[in-house]
Amino acid sequence: MLTNPRSDRVKAVRALSRRSVRSRTGLFLAEGPQAVREAVRFAPDQVPDVYVTAEAAERHPEIVAAAEAGGLFLHEVSPEVLEAMCDADHPQGVVAVCRWAEPALDVALGALPPDAVVCVLTNVRDPGNAGTVIRGADAAGADLVVLSDSSVDVRSPKVVRSSVGSLWHLPIVTGVPIPVILDALRARGIRLLAADGSGATVLPEADLARPHAWVLGNEAWGLEPEVRDACDEVVRVPIHGRAESLNLAMAATLCLYASAAARDARR
Amino acid sequence: MLTNPRSDRVKAVRALSRRSVRSRTGLFLAEGPQAVREAVRFAPDQVPDVYVTAEAAERHPEIVAAAEAGGLFLHEVSPEVLEAMCDADHPQGVVAVCRWAEPALDVALGALPPDAVVCVLTNVRDPGNAGTVIRGADAAGADLVVLSDSSVDVRSPKVVRSSVGSLWHLPIVTGVPIPVILDALRARGIRLLAADGSGATVLPEADLARPHAWVLGNEAWGLEPEVRDACDEVVRVPIHGRAESLNLAMAATLCLYASAAARDARR
Repeated sequence: MLTNPRSDRVKAVRALSRRSVRSRTGLFLAEGPQAVREAVRFAPDQVPDVYVTAEAAERHPEIVAAAEAGGLFLHEVSPEVLEAMCDADHPQGVVAVCRWAEPALDVALGALPPDAVVCVLTNVRDPGNAGTVIRGADAAGADLVVLSDSSVDVRSPKVVRSSVGSLWHLPIVTGVPIPVILDALRARGIRLLAADGSGATVLPEADLARPHAWVLGNEAWGLEPEVRDACDEVVRVPIHGRAESLNLAMAATLCLYASAAARDARR
Repeated sequence: MLTNPRSDRVKAVRALSRRSVRSRTGLFLAEGPQAVREAVRFAPDQVPDVYVTAEAAERHPEIVAAAEAGGLFLHEVSPEVLEAMCDADHPQGVVAVCRWAEPALDVALGALPPDAVVCVLTNVRDPGNAGTVIRGADAAGADLVVLSDSSVDVRSPKVVRSSVGSLWHLPIVTGVPIPVILDALRARGIRLLAADGSGATVLPEADLARPHAWVLGNEAWGLEPEVRDACDEVVRVPIHGRAESLNLAMAATLCLYASAAARDARR
């Protein structure tokens, strides 16, 4: 059992809350039972180490079983060690060190089904928003999420937490400039729908019959004009009451669920 | 100009971040230009005092104009005074003291249109969630939001902030026990739809043709069984991918937008 919260190993894990360390090592941290369970279930070969307290191991036998089945390194740690490793206030007794493995954009695009629905985020800066949109994209059955290089690091602890495991459920591509993303999607015959309050088309009238990508911008100032102009259609979620707008995650979820409904209706 | 951050007036305003003080005085705080603008625009007779820095007054002439048109007390304050008054880290130079005025439940129900859509929250504890759901209900054109007595105080600073002004856009009733809410809605002929992951009916197949209320529960553990059983139908938002669930605000927004779409289709 690891009991020394000041050991080099603990410091190395804790350092993964820093972006520079994540970039250099290619590693990041999944904190708490839900995130660790999904990492171990969906990407066991990308989980070098799981750290768990005795109490959490007893409370979550499914994590221990999955980790053992996957041949992962499962380390028992004291509560003090676990707390020292984490960014979260209440990691609930278990964390996993994960390797970030993402497909190249062209590989991810090549693997899309013919009726693809893609979610593109550009300039999204708030980790909670990014994670919640990824969760919504997963729930809506989207095939791919692409984050431009101007967006938050999806491996940051807050994104991981707010995605509630969805980070391991669907392919995610990051770090590509937005013009490259839009060109690559268009070259694959995927229509580009900008989600923007200024849209001339209202969501229920958007053409969702063909493969398409929702392009979503910054939570405060929306899409840059040049990105909006580069899209095939600008679509707005209708506001029925007096609210000025919806937040990013709500707008994204409504758009992606409209895509799911259109796909269901066709199948 | 008020310049003493330690004055009794400043302390009295600051104290409104405490629930006990809000209950006793019937007052609460709107922080930041967006919340203050909507309060002053939609409920000027419920805004005893507006406090603004010289800089914010210059940046937001529409707030000053609306406050003056409504005959409100507009006080210029130093940045130090404004900061001392606030719960928010960045109140952006303007706060308003507001009086909480809500209709009684039977009055609110009596004022509903024949094709009413109502949003009921019970046991919702996170202020950010409550405010975001209220914003979503506003955007979806819901006619009324009712929060049970077991829910968060909607006048808390975080709810006010996350509702982004929607608190002043539609009637909100609070503090009523959930059985009383459900009985009163039913007596008005309003169908009760429990939004719950266990639902037998999937959202696109729910009967939204008649007046109805969405009943939503706690963000972590959902609806209590007795509340679910008291509803006419239990409806789940379909999960198309591998996500375990959606968060409360996303589920609420999808349900309420489905109601709006059904209403639009009928009109």
